Amino acid sequence: MLEKFYSSIRDVPDFPKPGILFKDITPLLLDIDLFRSAVERIAEPFRGQNVDKVLGIESRGFILGMPVAMELGAGFVPARKEGKLPWERMRVEYELEYGTDALEIHADGIRKGERTLIVDDVLATGGTAAAASQAVREAGGELLGAAFLIELEMLNGRARLNSGGQLFSLLKYPRE
Amino acid sequence: MLEKFYSSIRDVPDFPKPGILFKDITPLLLDIDLFRSAVERIAEPFRGQNVDKVLGIESRGFILGMPVAMELGAGFVPARKEGKLPWERMRVEYELEYGTDALEIHADGIRKGERTLIVDDVLATGGTAAAASQAVREAGGELLGAAFLIELEMLNGRARLNSGGQLFSLLKYPRE
Repeated sequence: MLEKFYSSIRDVPDFPKPGILFKDITPLLLDIDLFRSAVERIAEPFRGQNVDKVLGIESRGFILGMPVAMELGAGFVPARKEGKLPWERMRVEYELEYGTDALEIHADGIRKGERTLIVDDVLATGGTAAAASQAVREAGGELLGAAFLIELEMLNGRARLNSGGQLFSLLKYPRE
Repeated sequence: MLEKFYSSIRDVPDFPKPGILFKDITPLLLDIDLFRSAVERIAEPFRGQNVDKVLGIESRGFILGMPVAMELGAGFVPARKEGKLPWERMRVEYELEYGTDALEIHADGIRKGERTLIVDDVLATGGTAAAASQAVREAGGELLGAAFLIELEMLNGRARLNSGGQLFSLLKYPRE
């Protein structure tokens, strides 16, 4: 039943650098009915949980996050790289393989007690999603969890996020 | 009737640089019913035109473009900055105030004859949208036009795009 979704993900070797097998989601985006069905499945575990906000992570997380927000009737909050958001910001730093990076959300994006779901296309090491979780908590929001189209299980992002509420991923690699 | 939409756009002075009054769309994204209504209005002029593909421009154009694609039952194609797309790409250069920039789409994103609509949040000088139009034509697609949430009329982007099919913008500045 998930086969159609798996078939719509393209393996691209050596991107963004040699030795990495990149999961390209763009063929799924071309098939709008299949994409709609993916959005419904990703939103499903969070229905009836009164989600107030969906936090989508720049920039493929925007493509998936807004439709999930619309499906759940929740507001959409973009989490962006440093310096991209125009208004008052909250900033969270996180570690990369070499050096650090930062994620920002608008100070008025998530208010005290708002039940928030993080959405991104891929869960890899979980660094960005962990930073997004921290931003939700610092804003005083209630972190419901995180939802992904794809989870790269060998990178163990799930463990890094395990104090961050419910975690759902539609497709898992390596294939079960 | 458009007043609610205008009220949801926040003026941010001196962003991204001194002297520029930035139109911040993030308050609209927080009000999901209002956003849904904006998407319906933006899609409206293109209904019944058999839109095959919506080309959304990175990265705020992703937030608006995918919902418009879903509304029209069209496939979604991301147009990204150089080096971000993993697979075979078509590249179009365009001029900035100083220097040049490039936009890329996947080679399999738009096929010969496919009726394509460009979507972005803001029409300013029209440089990016013109590059996206060129990419559509180079791919052999039929350019139906472009749709924006906001048009900054004083920057005259409309003139730059005038050979590019139908142009729709929901909100215009300065206010009419």
